[in-house]
Amino acid sequence: MNTKGIKIRVVLVEPLYDGNVGSVARSMKNFEYDDLALVNPCRLKEQSRAMAMHALDVLENASIHSTILDAVGDSNLIIAATGNPGKRIEKHIRMPSYTPVEIKHMLEDETGLISILFGREDKGLSNRELGLCDMIMSIPTGHEYPSMNISHACTVVLYELSNIKQGSIELAERFDLDLMYDHFHELMEEIEYPENKLDKTMLMVRRIFGRSRLTAREVQTLRGLMRRIQYHIRH
Amino acid sequence: MNTKGIKIRVVLVEPLYDGNVGSVARSMKNFEYDDLALVNPCRLKEQSRAMAMHALDVLENASIHSTILDAVGDSNLIIAATGNPGKRIEKHIRMPSYTPVEIKHMLEDETGLISILFGREDKGLSNRELGLCDMIMSIPTGHEYPSMNISHACTVVLYELSNIKQGSIELAERFDLDLMYDHFHELMEEIEYPENKLDKTMLMVRRIFGRSRLTAREVQTLRGLMRRIQYHIRH
Repeated sequence: MNTKGIKIRVVLVEPLYDGNVGSVARSMKNFEYDDLALVNPCRLKEQSRAMAMHALDVLENASIHSTILDAVGDSNLIIAATGNPGKRIEKHIRMPSYTPVEIKHMLEDETGLISILFGREDKGLSNRELGLCDMIMSIPTGHEYPSMNISHACTVVLYELSNIKQGSIELAERFDLDLMYDHFHELMEEIEYPENKLDKTMLMVRRIFGRSRLTAREVQTLRGLMRRIQYHIRH
Repeated sequence: MNTKGIKIRVVLVEPLYDGNVGSVARSMKNFEYDDLALVNPCRLKEQSRAMAMHALDVLENASIHSTILDAVGDSNLIIAATGNPGKRIEKHIRMPSYTPVEIKHMLEDETGLISILFGREDKGLSNRELGLCDMIMSIPTGHEYPSMNISHACTVVLYELSNIKQGSIELAERFDLDLMYDHFHELMEEIEYPENKLDKTMLMVRRIFGRSRLTAREVQTLRGLMRRIQYHIRH
């Protein structure tokens, strides 16, 4: 399963309980995933090993990071798993959330490394952290008690993504995407986009392109287009 | 969900760890199920309440039984959830196992009480117990480590059988999208985008925004941005 076009990295952001980390490792191994990244985790004591059962290797090979950016590294796409689909980064910026099934269908025929972030057991992910992500995924639960255990949520996501169709469309590298956004930012300044709206609009642009999952070729075309715009502004 | 034609009862057969029972209760409440039956359970101590979190009501209202038959009672259908899809009750009796998705499709248009049995954490269900069931359900896992935590398995099953429709975000009108693309096309001509590449790039742009499924508000922001670019090109 994890030999397919889409590779999955599970990223736990500041998990509070080591039993949950072990539980997530077990679930990953059940569905044949092994790329686990931990950002400032709690101490991994006996309970994490007990819950991991026969997935000790996944637990022991987990990478430890001090920042999310370090953990997601070279991912082509960063997805936040959240139990608050209604949560908005900012009042005026839409951050639609997709179900695991919708995400699965979107990723069909594509290839690349997808990092899926799971937040703290008590407070989830902060708005700033959500801002780093390209898309938001939420599991459709009931309204009365929507908050799932982190390892349950992870299990549902991996279960759903485990039978994704193999694809060959290569997603743009994170490095090239960052260059494109820098370029876009530069263009915005060049056209004297109002300072007070700049950050908001940049975030919106990231959301839009994040949802599009650009290919390398598309990024190049868009950058060429921006260069041409700049040329015409300057001459 | 539990208001549909199909009602679901979760039956745990001789669970060994009270934390798992609490975990199952939480997951049930997440997906709006509340009918939990326990057959000769372990003692339900602190850990079951800790793991149940805000699903204490499900835990406390669980019915306790001394036999499976007593627990499944008036069920229209009894399904065994097992991690051993290859296991056979008898050499000569085929007992095919279905995935949760297959079960879901089978139950469509039907109505009744479905009891789903989950066996002991270590030994699962015995052949005799499997013999009491109408169908066997197995979650498709990897081959190396197929054995899932009982609350994980239960979560996947309930997630799959619940089928909550998501709310709908209002997307941009086709009319406004067309205006935006015309505007974009105009801008491309203004920056003297090469004729021979124009159609291809316009199509690519349409694909990108098409995948994003823009809102009306996003379309307005993008058009404002284009107007500003044009202003700077012209002056």
